[in-house]
Amino acid sequence: MAGRRVYGSLKSPATLKVLVNLFEHDLDFEFVSVDLDNGEHKNKHFLSMNPFGQVPVYEDRGIKQFESRAIIRCMAHEYGKKGEELIYWDAKKQAVVANWIDVEDHHFEPPALKLISELLVKPKKSFTPDEGIVAEAEAEAELAKVLDVYEARLEKSKYLASEKYTIVDLLHLPNLQSLMGTPAKKLIESRPRVSSWCSDILARPAWAKVLICRRRPA
Amino acid sequence: MAGRRVYGSLKSPATLKVLVNLFEHDLDFEFVSVDLDNGEHKNKHFLSMNPFGQVPVYEDRGIKQFESRAIIRCMAHEYGKKGEELIYWDAKKQAVVANWIDVEDHHFEPPALKLISELLVKPKKSFTPDEGIVAEAEAEAELAKVLDVYEARLEKSKYLASEKYTIVDLLHLPNLQSLMGTPAKKLIESRPRVSSWCSDILARPAWAKVLICRRRPA
Repeated sequence: MAGRRVYGSLKSPATLKVLVNLFEHDLDFEFVSVDLDNGEHKNKHFLSMNPFGQVPVYEDRGIKQFESRAIIRCMAHEYGKKGEELIYWDAKKQAVVANWIDVEDHHFEPPALKLISELLVKPKKSFTPDEGIVAEAEAEAELAKVLDVYEARLEKSKYLASEKYTIVDLLHLPNLQSLMGTPAKKLIESRPRVSSWCSDILARPAWAKVLICRRRPA
Repeated sequence: MAGRRVYGSLKSPATLKVLVNLFEHDLDFEFVSVDLDNGEHKNKHFLSMNPFGQVPVYEDRGIKQFESRAIIRCMAHEYGKKGEELIYWDAKKQAVVANWIDVEDHHFEPPALKLISELLVKPKKSFTPDEGIVAEAEAEAELAKVLDVYEARLEKSKYLASEKYTIVDLLHLPNLQSLMGTPAKKLIESRPRVSSWCSDILARPAWAKVLICRRRPA
């Protein structure tokens, strides 16, 4: 185990991102489930690991990190499999990866999460169905614009940052998976390059392992 | 100049972050002013550099980046002055820096920008003064919580990520400077460690250079 531990929830996209990255790197780890419904992420012990009270927390050799992209970036640098690294060491190429990591953070995830919330989370909590129509339309329009940028981008390279699969693509997995289970999948399917990129990355064996975990929670 | 160019606006905190980092690294560059008031960041030429239409864009040796934290992170790795690097190469220490870069991004900047907007930007545009009272109170409460975390953090180390000044601290400069020019400075001054950290980093010569640029725009 090498003291590698993830404190998280299988309901949290950020946790799933860290898990898929661990699987990509064939790393052993212990998963400590944090019960979000019962506010376990706001108790004293958890706050001592992440003062902002959010999952996941990742512990490796005595260092605790709680920002998922930071965790994933460092793991990819530290444990990259020779010839199959999900980042670059070359400064110029890594500059492009770093740029697109922040695109996922600032442009893709916010509207994706809003849309998923409107389409999946709120209906389950039985809000009136029309309550979120405006919010849904806004999030959809915002996400459509981002996917237009992606469609143009994927004309230039097979993956978002380069010709190879990197952590930039990986970071999109949990939200793409959720979107594909909603009517918003039309936003993806109507863009041929985005659609084939999405099918390609969702088919990665490391992601299949995450889905198995999610079906059989610890 | 080595083809190093910043397309930005002195009104943009993200642009100022990139500028202070260039000054910290003693790097020559050309500044290309982008007129945000006239929507120059939404014209075809600018969108060809950043499809999301935001400043800054940074160009170095033919590579263009448009996410400010990615620019700063890569610059610090590439051009660190021997013995005065603003990042680490050691994986464990860099993991902590990476984590706290994302804290500034996800926790500090959003309420800081909201509060600055309520206190500085909106009054100038002569909105009714009470319109933003609720928004202001919410942003203030949110920022106060973050600064409580910082106060506790600065008990453990002189700077946010470690004993030395890093790009984590640097990323806070433009918004700290703005906050100190508003009644929200009480949030900083009422926390002794945050207050002395803030005075310390605002006094850096590289930041003084940015303030000079801002007084005499190109």
